Amino acid sequence: MIQCPRGTRDFLPDEMERRRYYEGKLRSVALRFGFRETETPIFEDAELFILRSGPNVLNELYAFKDKGDRDLALRPEMTAPAIRMFVNSMSNEPKPIKIFYFGQCFRYERPQSGRYREFFQFGAELIGSATPETDAEAIALAVAMIESLGLRDYKIRIGHIGVLRQKLADAGVPKEKTAEVLQKLDKKLYDEARPMMEDMNIGTHDVEEIFELTETVGGIEVIDKVPGEPGEYLRSLIGILSAMGVEDVEIDLGVVRGLDYYTGMVFEAEAPVLGAEKQICGGGSYTLSELFGGERVFSTGFAIGFDRILLAMEKEGISYEQKGIDAYVVPVSDDVRIKAAEITAMLRRAGISCDMDIMGRKMAKALKYASSARARFAIIVGKNELEQDSVTLRNMASGDQEIVQITELAGSVQG
Amino acid sequence: MIQCPRGTRDFLPDEMERRRYYEGKLRSVALRFGFRETETPIFEDAELFILRSGPNVLNELYAFKDKGDRDLALRPEMTAPAIRMFVNSMSNEPKPIKIFYFGQCFRYERPQSGRYREFFQFGAELIGSATPETDAEAIALAVAMIESLGLRDYKIRIGHIGVLRQKLADAGVPKEKTAEVLQKLDKKLYDEARPMMEDMNIGTHDVEEIFELTETVGGIEVIDKVPGEPGEYLRSLIGILSAMGVEDVEIDLGVVRGLDYYTGMVFEAEAPVLGAEKQICGGGSYTLSELFGGERVFSTGFAIGFDRILLAMEKEGISYEQKGIDAYVVPVSDDVRIKAAEITAMLRRAGISCDMDIMGRKMAKALKYASSARARFAIIVGKNELEQDSVTLRNMASGDQEIVQITELAGSVQG
Repeated sequence: MIQCPRGTRDFLPDEMERRRYYEGKLRSVALRFGFRETETPIFEDAELFILRSGPNVLNELYAFKDKGDRDLALRPEMTAPAIRMFVNSMSNEPKPIKIFYFGQCFRYERPQSGRYREFFQFGAELIGSATPETDAEAIALAVAMIESLGLRDYKIRIGHIGVLRQKLADAGVPKEKTAEVLQKLDKKLYDEARPMMEDMNIGTHDVEEIFELTETVGGIEVIDKVPGEPGEYLRSLIGILSAMGVEDVEIDLGVVRGLDYYTGMVFEAEAPVLGAEKQICGGGSYTLSELFGGERVFSTGFAIGFDRILLAMEKEGISYEQKGIDAYVVPVSDDVRIKAAEITAMLRRAGISCDMDIMGRKMAKALKYASSARARFAIIVGKNELEQDSVTLRNMASGDQEIVQITELAGSVQG
Repeated sequence: MIQCPRGTRDFLPDEMERRRYYEGKLRSVALRFGFRETETPIFEDAELFILRSGPNVLNELYAFKDKGDRDLALRPEMTAPAIRMFVNSMSNEPKPIKIFYFGQCFRYERPQSGRYREFFQFGAELIGSATPETDAEAIALAVAMIESLGLRDYKIRIGHIGVLRQKLADAGVPKEKTAEVLQKLDKKLYDEARPMMEDMNIGTHDVEEIFELTETVGGIEVIDKVPGEPGEYLRSLIGILSAMGVEDVEIDLGVVRGLDYYTGMVFEAEAPVLGAEKQICGGGSYTLSELFGGERVFSTGFAIGFDRILLAMEKEGISYEQKGIDAYVVPVSDDVRIKAAEITAMLRRAGISCDMDIMGRKMAKALKYASSARARFAIIVGKNELEQDSVTLRNMASGDQEIVQITELAGSVQG
């Protein structure tokens, strides 16, 4: 028996209905914030992702050659494609460009709870603007999205990559080594970061100060410990967020994000209920367009892990109520099947979701099917009632039945 | 500059909005017909598609090996994945199972008008039922979907693969050669079919009769020329379709569909406005599950080419009106920016789609941006008005302005 490939999933109707419902929630929040949807291809020139993330990314890419010998890769994320699209087709549009997107991404890694080889991301980018308002808008959107799903326990942590970068530069870490050190600090791998910096002749005192900075976490008062421009920037950002109703944030100078292209503010959201794999959202301000052949343009963006956040909601016990159809039409005998089809079509034209027995089932079985389809009503089409242009309308929840004129059927179902 | 891969597309906001709008129309019709949505992975075991379509399919597949040496392929269509999913996870569900799906498919072929390497299909399957009602339901859904998009000029052609199969068998075409001959007949390649059949010692008279059958097209009266069971079946099907309000169909015994697994009714929809590549929908009744390790189960399904049908709509001049946002908030000076952010957030919480200037633009430029975002209103936040807890509400279409209390702003915008 052929199964779906390892790390991928089929979404059956109940699960899919739930996913579409919450996808719709996220989309409507983004639209309400004045973001507009875009879509890019499932695969890209592999080079695009190497330019963004470095050659190591190849280890976890689904990379392949097409029949024209082009090096392609299934997208592992959608920021690089979005910025490529911007460089190709949108660079002359009025700024800021506010876009969002939703879709599959692919990473070849060991599947585990909340981590799939095919996973779904919701992302947004503000392109061409570099103000505290820009960053506030991105964070406010992320928060509104998470709130719209009903997730109760989550935490927003905001940092500024400039603080650590400046400190590393001041301590004498060479520019070309900064990314490497930051990656270790991002994962709090101090035992690996320490010898690395010692090899660069960074003094013990500086190393400790750097580690301390990485561990600087707390409420808004923490900003007082942030020197210079980044501190002022964060203070301004927090002020705007507060005006937008986003109050409950943590300042965490250890939020580094794994990637080189972040330029200033960085933020993450986590759902503690998920345990070790608790990050549900991450983003920040960056420049990327110049790597893809465009001008350098400041942007802020983030991505929400859709599978991860749905898992968090499940763990919080947020239940989704499946919708059923309005009516299920059951012909009592073969000679009324045509009439049943006519009634079904009439109800559908009236905007009523309606199904009918197409297998010639006996009444009891047909009603059982109606139940499994969560029909609110069964419409029983019998010869005797038809002579009075009527059918039997059965309320599936209560079992109550009444004879209804066909001309009044749509109204009765719509209630 | 990196471009998107050949045969793929970026969808920019205007186009994407239009696509999501029509995708939503198709989805809501399917739900109204009692179909439920499912989703399968973007790639599958390559074997799945070979089992469905034969090894020739490899020529147009995006096939690749993953790092675990598995042979995978981007899906070229979604019927095989849907039936695999049914065999894996849904075979015990009450029948009929009515599902639909929408997504990207991939074929490595020469890109041309309406043909892409990454293209979008909308499909539906009724699994586990083999009655005229089943086929009628599939055709009625396809028609309702096409109608919901507003396409005016399209044609539904219905055939029955059993007629030609029977005739070929009677004429002495060996069973294992039937698919090959049918493929030629499907494309009306008589010059290639003739020598093929002559090699099988089929008499000239029979060959001519076969060709004639393939050319048998017309209104419902054509059914009279269809012998035996298929004729009765088609008559019954047409009767149900007519009861469902689907009257305008053509009987065409030359509708063969390229594939081996069709068992009875086959149908196609075409939009003549598209010229040579005019097919927008195709389907029929089939069995496929037994190829994937399941029991043999009768099904009926179809797929609509989403890109193709959008192109047909465009050629018919069906225009889509872009939606804009409700309001764009413009702070007049820096000292009211926080207040502007507050107002923006308040309106969004009231369900109003609202954006604000985040770049510190001057009034004229900000209003220009509001125009480009198709905002219905601009909300001008100035210091003097704020002293009276008011802002200026500007109707972007008329240019009319009025002073509105902030507490009444949401109501004024919602009108």
